[in-house]
Amino acid sequence: MKFICEGVVLSDAAITVSKACASKTITPVLECIKLNAHNDTLTLTAYDGELSIEKKIKAEVFEEGEVCVNGKFFADFIGKISVFNVTVQSDERGIAIKYGDNATKMQTLPADEFPFVGVDKGEDYVEIKESDLKNLISKTVFCCATDESRPILKGCLLETKGDTMEATALDGFRMATCECPRVGGVDMKIVCPARTLVEISRMIEAKDENLKLYVAKNTLSVEVDNTTLTSRLYLGEFVNKNNIFPPAFATELTVTRAELIDSMERASVLTRGDKNNLVIFDIKADGIRLTANSDMGNVDEVVAIDLEGKELRIAMNGKFMLEALKALDDEKVKLSFNTPVAPFVAKNTETKMGTYLILPVRTNS
Amino acid sequence: MKFICEGVVLSDAAITVSKACASKTITPVLECIKLNAHNDTLTLTAYDGELSIEKKIKAEVFEEGEVCVNGKFFADFIGKISVFNVTVQSDERGIAIKYGDNATKMQTLPADEFPFVGVDKGEDYVEIKESDLKNLISKTVFCCATDESRPILKGCLLETKGDTMEATALDGFRMATCECPRVGGVDMKIVCPARTLVEISRMIEAKDENLKLYVAKNTLSVEVDNTTLTSRLYLGEFVNKNNIFPPAFATELTVTRAELIDSMERASVLTRGDKNNLVIFDIKADGIRLTANSDMGNVDEVVAIDLEGKELRIAMNGKFMLEALKALDDEKVKLSFNTPVAPFVAKNTETKMGTYLILPVRTNS
Repeated sequence: MKFICEGVVLSDAAITVSKACASKTITPVLECIKLNAHNDTLTLTAYDGELSIEKKIKAEVFEEGEVCVNGKFFADFIGKISVFNVTVQSDERGIAIKYGDNATKMQTLPADEFPFVGVDKGEDYVEIKESDLKNLISKTVFCCATDESRPILKGCLLETKGDTMEATALDGFRMATCECPRVGGVDMKIVCPARTLVEISRMIEAKDENLKLYVAKNTLSVEVDNTTLTSRLYLGEFVNKNNIFPPAFATELTVTRAELIDSMERASVLTRGDKNNLVIFDIKADGIRLTANSDMGNVDEVVAIDLEGKELRIAMNGKFMLEALKALDDEKVKLSFNTPVAPFVAKNTETKMGTYLILPVRTNS
Repeated sequence: MKFICEGVVLSDAAITVSKACASKTITPVLECIKLNAHNDTLTLTAYDGELSIEKKIKAEVFEEGEVCVNGKFFADFIGKISVFNVTVQSDERGIAIKYGDNATKMQTLPADEFPFVGVDKGEDYVEIKESDLKNLISKTVFCCATDESRPILKGCLLETKGDTMEATALDGFRMATCECPRVGGVDMKIVCPARTLVEISRMIEAKDENLKLYVAKNTLSVEVDNTTLTSRLYLGEFVNKNNIFPPAFATELTVTRAELIDSMERASVLTRGDKNNLVIFDIKADGIRLTANSDMGNVDEVVAIDLEGKELRIAMNGKFMLEALKALDDEKVKLSFNTPVAPFVAKNTETKMGTYLILPVRTNS
């Protein structure tokens, strides 16, 4: 294999693709980027067993072929020579990278050790505006589970419903749902790994162009700027949110989002050493009395509200409430409760994107 | 104790002073800021046993007194209420912090548990331009030892020599020296903790004003904007740099600093997993042939030089060389060597600030 390409183009491609390299694996080839030179194209591919990213760039190919190089090292090293035109040539033992008058050798693994990455994206897709998809991801993915106790909860449910696409994420303590318009395509219901969605979000810009999400054979594929991301999907039954979501509420209030965020942030300074970040809301007609206690002291604030329904005292993990409030958009948000032990809901009052269901914390008092 | 002051002023003072709070100590009072309200002044003080920072701000004092609060919590919390006027009032159990219509209680410790911080700065000082002092610190302090094997090496030797102030730092593998003009004051020779110098550097701006470094009773004090920093000095004999510094060199070369930095950075990508970051210089008339090897591959580059004296092959820790090159300023730097096992020197060719002595690494070949 021998090719020449622009260092800055190669560097950019190596950084993009290396996001799908595995780290700390017992299978070194999964830490690699596969370089494939063919015709006038260099294809870089990385695959960690779940997510693959492939990027094609223009190169002058003198000798076709393919090898695998450690992705992190290759991306970092090429980043240091991005001002040069770079020649890469393989022999039996590795590759020689030539730039300016200098050369560096890097170890390689045979390309046939690299797993086959199916990039047959099929023909079924859903089309969504890039900015909507970015929003959908940012408003839900932080609520995905991070532990392995129920692996499917490490993914986000994406489901088309008529003209909308709905995303749902939950971790056993809270649930996020969000919907956005969809431009076209077939119906789908998939559970996509959170990490895949984060990488898709990084790849796209918050602009008006549409993106096609292709689904085939339990994989999701997207293509942006000659970069193809393909991810395994999670199989199994996702939690049905309709079984969790309360049909009605006994206590509903609207509150100025920024004021409640400020109070919750002060409470979080005092409770940050505690596991539960326990904050208590005493909801009365004239406001929420918000209290938090720790070894360091206690916060006791009143935040003005408009209340409909019954007064209520409820304890919660302040971190979950604060993250939900920050993910919402409107000046005023609506909080809806039933009992001190029933899940409650935070959502916008004007716009529609993002609804958060949070389990309260049971206390003795 | 009861006082009112502007939240933004109190927040700024708490952040400044909290830099001297101890962390993870078995003496909780050393993690505190002492608040002292007296006349129309609030004095905030923190002291970790080595370094103290004290700041005075204007406050409306209704009741004089003093208490100790956890510095990190207090600074973080006040940062969240900096838009308000803040009232702080103590009772037997703690302080009540009032802002807007709300209040938070914080635990306190009695002020008499707080160690006495002598701030008698004496009358002997050395005066230096702030920008020169900042430069002096940044060019030397990174070479101070970080382990406890020879505690005095965790400090930087500051010594006046006629119209100049000279700083020396060494960690057993490399040594930095730097000098700058001094404006006036007495002669001094002190060993100041590296951490103190870093904090002093943060307090001052790189401007033309002069700063007085007061030395009395084994303490160093500086005063900037109603903030007084006082630090214990290290006692004992510092290494005499004249015993280390080679009187003459067999091999001297000048090299373009940016070119050598680029090559060293590429080498450092490959060697970063290794303990020694081993880089070998093969110095010939037409250039340095720079090689580095690791499991990942090997770098082999030639950097153009002007050579005077003998050719030489020498091995070094690339990290030390790279840090020295980055701390220098000139377009061209001068490297001076004797034998493969003797310390070598890197310094500027035009300007004077910063000279680095580095021990080579002994290799078998």
